[in-house]
Amino acid sequence: MKVLILGGDGYLGWPTSMHLSAHGHEVLAVDNYLRRNLCRTESSEPLFDVPNLHRRAESWKAKSGKTIDVRIGDLADWDFIADVFQSFKPDAVIHYAEQPSAPYSMKDRSTAALTFHNNLGVTFNVIQAMHEFAPDAHLVKLGTMGEYGTPNIDIEEGWLKVEHKGRSEKFLFPRQAGSLYHTTKVLDTDLLWFYVRTWGLRVTDLMQGPVYGLETYENAGEESLYPFFNYDELFGTVINRFMVQAVVGYPLTVYGKGGQTRGYLNIKDTLQCLRLSIENPAANGELRIFNQFVETFSVNDIAELVRKSGSRLGLDVQVQNLPNPRKEMEEHYYNPAHTGLLELGLQPHFLDDAAIDDMMRLIMSYEDRIQKDCIFRDVKWKK
Amino acid sequence: MKVLILGGDGYLGWPTSMHLSAHGHEVLAVDNYLRRNLCRTESSEPLFDVPNLHRRAESWKAKSGKTIDVRIGDLADWDFIADVFQSFKPDAVIHYAEQPSAPYSMKDRSTAALTFHNNLGVTFNVIQAMHEFAPDAHLVKLGTMGEYGTPNIDIEEGWLKVEHKGRSEKFLFPRQAGSLYHTTKVLDTDLLWFYVRTWGLRVTDLMQGPVYGLETYENAGEESLYPFFNYDELFGTVINRFMVQAVVGYPLTVYGKGGQTRGYLNIKDTLQCLRLSIENPAANGELRIFNQFVETFSVNDIAELVRKSGSRLGLDVQVQNLPNPRKEMEEHYYNPAHTGLLELGLQPHFLDDAAIDDMMRLIMSYEDRIQKDCIFRDVKWKK
Repeated sequence: MKVLILGGDGYLGWPTSMHLSAHGHEVLAVDNYLRRNLCRTESSEPLFDVPNLHRRAESWKAKSGKTIDVRIGDLADWDFIADVFQSFKPDAVIHYAEQPSAPYSMKDRSTAALTFHNNLGVTFNVIQAMHEFAPDAHLVKLGTMGEYGTPNIDIEEGWLKVEHKGRSEKFLFPRQAGSLYHTTKVLDTDLLWFYVRTWGLRVTDLMQGPVYGLETYENAGEESLYPFFNYDELFGTVINRFMVQAVVGYPLTVYGKGGQTRGYLNIKDTLQCLRLSIENPAANGELRIFNQFVETFSVNDIAELVRKSGSRLGLDVQVQNLPNPRKEMEEHYYNPAHTGLLELGLQPHFLDDAAIDDMMRLIMSYEDRIQKDCIFRDVKWKK
Repeated sequence: MKVLILGGDGYLGWPTSMHLSAHGHEVLAVDNYLRRNLCRTESSEPLFDVPNLHRRAESWKAKSGKTIDVRIGDLADWDFIADVFQSFKPDAVIHYAEQPSAPYSMKDRSTAALTFHNNLGVTFNVIQAMHEFAPDAHLVKLGTMGEYGTPNIDIEEGWLKVEHKGRSEKFLFPRQAGSLYHTTKVLDTDLLWFYVRTWGLRVTDLMQGPVYGLETYENAGEESLYPFFNYDELFGTVINRFMVQAVVGYPLTVYGKGGQTRGYLNIKDTLQCLRLSIENPAANGELRIFNQFVETFSVNDIAELVRKSGSRLGLDVQVQNLPNPRKEMEEHYYNPAHTGLLELGLQPHFLDDAAIDDMMRLIMSYEDRIQKDCIFRDVKWKK
């Protein structure tokens, strides 16, 4: 299958490119290095340098004998995206091409504007390009579990049947997100749902939880094939960040009461979920939604898992409760469904002692590269 | 009260400016003439020319002795909107500044892109400007009843309490709109709701139905103070357009079965609703939503009302059913609540025989200006 990966340089984009290539798909990875540029601008560099996308594709070719094609350009530019679609003629499109950080989106007006215009502008162009050049291709869009927020009812898988005054209707599950970044994904879903109904596009929207991990099926032991690994408050997801903080002796920073609960998954499971979605496409005119995570943890749970792992590895890990810079519930009901991807064949990896200790040991081998002073970023949701 | 009216040149913006001025408010009307420019580009000129916004304000001053201040500029440009907010220091902001046509938004990729980027870009800037320069001012945003679509359950006033598996939660009423234009308003509401929760903005979001009419409390008999009156399929709302078609002997064009039902209101009631909203503001941190219409009609109902009025006035009005160029249900349940504005004091005008005959007679006085060949526009939702 010809798979176009938008945002193919990112934390998930590059591992996905290799994974689908390894499974026999013809991959074109497209990126404009926005994430790299933002990390440099904010001095939020990842744990180790990664080669540019062309060099990564060369390393992959050397290791696997397989080709990943690469194009660098801005998908918010219509001429560029039109040329990508027309020349590659994808069977499937994976859309990761968004500014991915919640705190970055809340930092100030200009980071908010960049997030808003980039994320919505690219999604708009992707929809238009699918319609004009690949109307029967399957779009797999990365959403987020954060679209749902933390409602006081069970979170269903994308849709909710509502009974009201003796009548009933099926709606998109109501969405109310906790950051501008997450809200751009809510808006993406609304926009996709309109064009699925109107133009008959085939779309899978993946409501993904925070991802952790570094090693995948394709890169184990090959540093030149590792993804970005950020560990600061802007671009580091919480499990990755806490593990780095533990290694470098920086107290684990729990915001508020720490009861904030989310669904998490190993990067290996992200890859499986993407491949399963691609290989089992949605129908024309279908907006298929999967909740993409494996297990739920509170922030306190994660701090405790990392503390215990540190203890096993000889580290004295401290936990510090800080005033919450975000606007979010710190204790709440959370019971989201997540059966769709298991039914497609997902073989989940759990965050057990062996998994967390392996990741901690890998990070410990990079201990001298950790920049302690870039962890704390002081982004407040409301000044 | 100091009221900033964004989109103050439009079909509703200019009458609102006069109405609030007449009621003792200090009004600044801002516009970039986008609507005028689009009408000219598309050769969808209104029934009669209207003076520019500066000239309109002069006419209003001559008639009423009251001043409406005017600024021309693009609210999607941060420097401009920041200067408007900082210099005027509004107590209330009315946000009409959006591309208002559903068919225009569905015409082609470039009209879709203009609609999407203009509407969302202005709303984003308005939110940021409220937060930075007028955090306690009250934002009144024009949404649309079209945000709800035509669900099979009663449409409540903005919010829905959901009971699900023994638990309950209050959500924004689920939204699924029928055009890109309407979808931009769904996205506006989602974005407003995020920033209301996060920053404590005070917002009223008015879910308005299609408006009809020309004469208001302030402009009766004064052509120089009339609003735009479009009657083509791009920019003419259905009741206004059908009346013009009846006058000029162009069959009333009912799409499909004609059972499409919506909530309508007289332009005079729009003015009351806006004034009542401004004078009874939402609280800080409140997203207040009103459904703003007076009575519901199907398209067939409207065609019959116009046909009968024509008959009373000596016109032989034909009705023609055309294949529906839109994607919408042509027969459906429709029972939307609309009590909030009545409770604030709205005195509704109904579309009775006298009202429709008066409007028809006024249009008949402009019969020689009607450009019959600009009515049909052939915009299809899916090619």
